[in-house]
Amino acid sequence: MATLTQAEASNVTAPTQLVASQLETYAYRRFGQGSAPPLLCLQHFTGTLDFWDPAVTDPLARGRELILFENAGIGRSSGTVPDTMAGMAAHVLAFVDALGLTQVDVLGFSLGGVLAQLIALGRPTLVRKMLLVGTAPEGGEDIMHLEKPELQRILDDPKVQGLERLVQLFFTSSAPSQAAGQAYAQRLAARKQDREPASSPNVAAAQLAAFRAWERGVGGERFAKLGEIRQPCLVVNGVLDQMISVKNSYALAEHLPRAMLQTYPDAGHGSLFQYHDSFVRQASLFLDSEAL
Amino acid sequence: MATLTQAEASNVTAPTQLVASQLETYAYRRFGQGSAPPLLCLQHFTGTLDFWDPAVTDPLARGRELILFENAGIGRSSGTVPDTMAGMAAHVLAFVDALGLTQVDVLGFSLGGVLAQLIALGRPTLVRKMLLVGTAPEGGEDIMHLEKPELQRILDDPKVQGLERLVQLFFTSSAPSQAAGQAYAQRLAARKQDREPASSPNVAAAQLAAFRAWERGVGGERFAKLGEIRQPCLVVNGVLDQMISVKNSYALAEHLPRAMLQTYPDAGHGSLFQYHDSFVRQASLFLDSEAL
Repeated sequence: MATLTQAEASNVTAPTQLVASQLETYAYRRFGQGSAPPLLCLQHFTGTLDFWDPAVTDPLARGRELILFENAGIGRSSGTVPDTMAGMAAHVLAFVDALGLTQVDVLGFSLGGVLAQLIALGRPTLVRKMLLVGTAPEGGEDIMHLEKPELQRILDDPKVQGLERLVQLFFTSSAPSQAAGQAYAQRLAARKQDREPASSPNVAAAQLAAFRAWERGVGGERFAKLGEIRQPCLVVNGVLDQMISVKNSYALAEHLPRAMLQTYPDAGHGSLFQYHDSFVRQASLFLDSEAL
Repeated sequence: MATLTQAEASNVTAPTQLVASQLETYAYRRFGQGSAPPLLCLQHFTGTLDFWDPAVTDPLARGRELILFENAGIGRSSGTVPDTMAGMAAHVLAFVDALGLTQVDVLGFSLGGVLAQLIALGRPTLVRKMLLVGTAPEGGEDIMHLEKPELQRILDDPKVQGLERLVQLFFTSSAPSQAAGQAYAQRLAARKQDREPASSPNVAAAQLAAFRAWERGVGGERFAKLGEIRQPCLVVNGVLDQMISVKNSYALAEHLPRAMLQTYPDAGHGSLFQYHDSFVRQASLFLDSEAL
């Protein structure tokens, strides 16, 4: 394992690496250092490695190693995107095994937060602590309904493309939130070389199918599985998240036995990017503290 | 204004003082020091000055002055307990004026959090930031229904009296929460002298009448008044609060324009006492930071 220099400890400059696993060959980035377990970062719906905000990853990498993972069929990772959450979680474990990791913290954002829950359930010894941001439990509500008028309006607007679309989707309509969104877009654009190819419509279709099944749930006592996740968790959301309603974060914090919830005002799905200073401070405090 | 020595900066040892105002003469305690505005602490249903946990007040007093206020008709404060929240808030303002305070932060716990909201609305220039713990907006739900079976069971048990009753009401039934409750009770009992007289049943009756009207609300758009509270707020609750449901904290954080929410797992109404280390850390961070 090569230790990257501090100068490379940024998602603007960290090289994209490839690792072959028992399932597929995955693209990833690995940077930062510290005594804490590595922080495995699991990405949102259709997002590639390039969608991790350096304002979040880089300060976190000053206290620990960050490992950004590209799931099967995304960016330069081989294979096809599974249409189940379990299928995507299997790729996370294959990747972790390929790198020989035995203990990690996990930052799961949106779809990545779903995978984080499945990994904690499927291989509890692997996961020390989890940051679950803008995500939902199985059987939750108001999860990724892109057909909702408030989202469809953005997705159907031909003038809103690329990063601008993400700003509209992840931030609220207020002037301060939109300004924060523009700053976020600029930070994402700062990486000029070695960028990942954007996700195709096939990626979205498979991931949305997985979200639909996740929302339907499995019957039985609602949220009962969350009781089996014993890891300390920090659940984070914006109170105005249109993509995955904050109600899902309430359910997570009410049913995970060791979860602390934090919500941000005038913030949507991208609350961690809008309040990046606060998020990094809180995430570091949570990851570095003995108790909640 | 006498500066109390550091040795007196504890709710175990701080002397109870009296100040005459335009309305009544109020009992209070004042200790600690720091460059931040004083933190005005507004107490819960039937609670006196003796019910502020030194594990919360004393570390906070290392960064600022704390002022614990005893409302009219409680402890050694003169007068009768108003049966409206507005009546109780008027006493807070009379007290603040009697001390000549022009800017304060507020820690409002439970009933005290209701008064904090009214003060921020009635005299916005007075309040810089607010900590709203285990409390509810006007028109909230599941607020102080002591007739609920899970609360009635505790209140009707002849073997559960005094601080033991508070432990049952404020903490969950889990072993760790009950252990935290016993530690809390021991901390409250550490003050041996200069204690306040306990509240009579008349206090409870008046305060409950005020809670009932607060829960009924005023009609019109629900929670609209919260939009007028521009102060940064940190809203805190336990997810298993039986006295004032955590749903009320969700409503506060969703409708206060500048509120951050924090919830604690396996915690009830007394979440700030159960997680006193975390609460003090988060409260200090919030009070001392420029941004949320």
